[in-house]
Amino acid sequence: MSRLLILKIGGEVLDNPALRDSLLTDFATISGPRILVHGGGKTGTEIAQRLGVETEMVNGRRITSADMLDVALMVYGGLMNKQLVSRLQALNINALGLSGADLDMVRANKRPAGDIDYGFVGDVGKINAAQLQQLLNHDITPVLAPLSHDGAGQMLNTNADTIASETARAMAGSHEVHLAFTFGKAGVLLDVDDDSSLVRHLNPAEYERLRASGQIAGGMIPKLDNAFAALRAGVHRVYICHAAAAGHLFTDTFIGTEIYV
Amino acid sequence: MSRLLILKIGGEVLDNPALRDSLLTDFATISGPRILVHGGGKTGTEIAQRLGVETEMVNGRRITSADMLDVALMVYGGLMNKQLVSRLQALNINALGLSGADLDMVRANKRPAGDIDYGFVGDVGKINAAQLQQLLNHDITPVLAPLSHDGAGQMLNTNADTIASETARAMAGSHEVHLAFTFGKAGVLLDVDDDSSLVRHLNPAEYERLRASGQIAGGMIPKLDNAFAALRAGVHRVYICHAAAAGHLFTDTFIGTEIYV
Repeated sequence: MSRLLILKIGGEVLDNPALRDSLLTDFATISGPRILVHGGGKTGTEIAQRLGVETEMVNGRRITSADMLDVALMVYGGLMNKQLVSRLQALNINALGLSGADLDMVRANKRPAGDIDYGFVGDVGKINAAQLQQLLNHDITPVLAPLSHDGAGQMLNTNADTIASETARAMAGSHEVHLAFTFGKAGVLLDVDDDSSLVRHLNPAEYERLRASGQIAGGMIPKLDNAFAALRAGVHRVYICHAAAAGHLFTDTFIGTEIYV
Repeated sequence: MSRLLILKIGGEVLDNPALRDSLLTDFATISGPRILVHGGGKTGTEIAQRLGVETEMVNGRRITSADMLDVALMVYGGLMNKQLVSRLQALNINALGLSGADLDMVRANKRPAGDIDYGFVGDVGKINAAQLQQLLNHDITPVLAPLSHDGAGQMLNTNADTIASETARAMAGSHEVHLAFTFGKAGVLLDVDDDSSLVRHLNPAEYERLRASGQIAGGMIPKLDNAFAALRAGVHRVYICHAAAAGHLFTDTFIGTEIYV
């Protein structure tokens, strides 16, 4: 099976134009089919504040009100997506920005209101893998915004990490999928303030050990649970790495966390 | 040559959800290949105001500052485009939202600063007709936002009427192109407050006569100059009509202004 890179560009990277542009330059040089996935970084929160739209958080998750969904459509679907696409075009990458509604790319179900009503949040139902494949066949590089739709005319907000891993899973049947999450740290760290505490390799047994001992905690746990779920579903490799390391993926000089089962 | 409909959805139509949705329903029922072009309606101005971005106008044209370009990317490229795309998907139209950067669809040149510096405004250089044709071949309906790019990483703002007519001209070599501008009036009116003063047919001689007598004036003149330029460049028909008339295009029951040379 041919290699497919799915790269998530993290919020801290979007917030740092120099780091973002150097990542895009590296991304453009990696050979073979590629998909870029992005969120909004701080801009979503900043625009919401300037518009007087309040951000409500429950259990670390953002509640998506109708007004906040409009902000997501504007910032993720418009501002961020088009800036990334135009920069990739300048690097001779034939990029195509996509929300989940475009070409019916990400069909989702509005999350049912239980103890918490998350609002206009979509849980992914189906990634349109056949359509993605057609785009890749035409040497087009999809740039996926963290937006889905319900098929009945309603846009929905979906976490960018989820879009990336669901896309990876959907493409795993036809490709050797490498899923890379880039951010502002070197990778999974045992001491978040010390890049030298990087965990270079992680398998399920080692993960269990580090989690049991409390050396891996907090926001990294859902990311890693997500990564292992993707691997169990057939994704070949998951990487968590600094944006500056992306250009070294698939080489001996790569420094970051490589995750496998 | 096969028929191609390029339909511009006017600002007043976007501002009226019931009229917009009925236009989209009609648009979905028209057979054959279709392209939708949109602007932002009042939402662009409203969001700019709420963000504290000032709208500067010179000779009836909006100056696009860097902040205003961000608003255009957000409102045209994100909010409006994705709302239209998701609604078309719900009508079983495989819509794909595109800015000029996506698939290098609209390459433009930043307008040189002369007596007036228009800011981040793009004059269309090239519409990617070959790529548009490929999308149409796959039964995809492009939804074009009024945004272009310069090929060097800079997004630009381009008038939606211009995007529509330039696209029509670019496709005229391979299709019988019908270009329809929909808005909130019945068409070209001799008395703007009286729909019964509708001009049903307009050719160059009649246009000259009505313009010389002052019966056609104001904002309609650039629209009509634009329409006749498109016709001289090979576009088959131009229509200016109420959004509610779009469903009657290509039938005997169509009421609006039909323009030809």
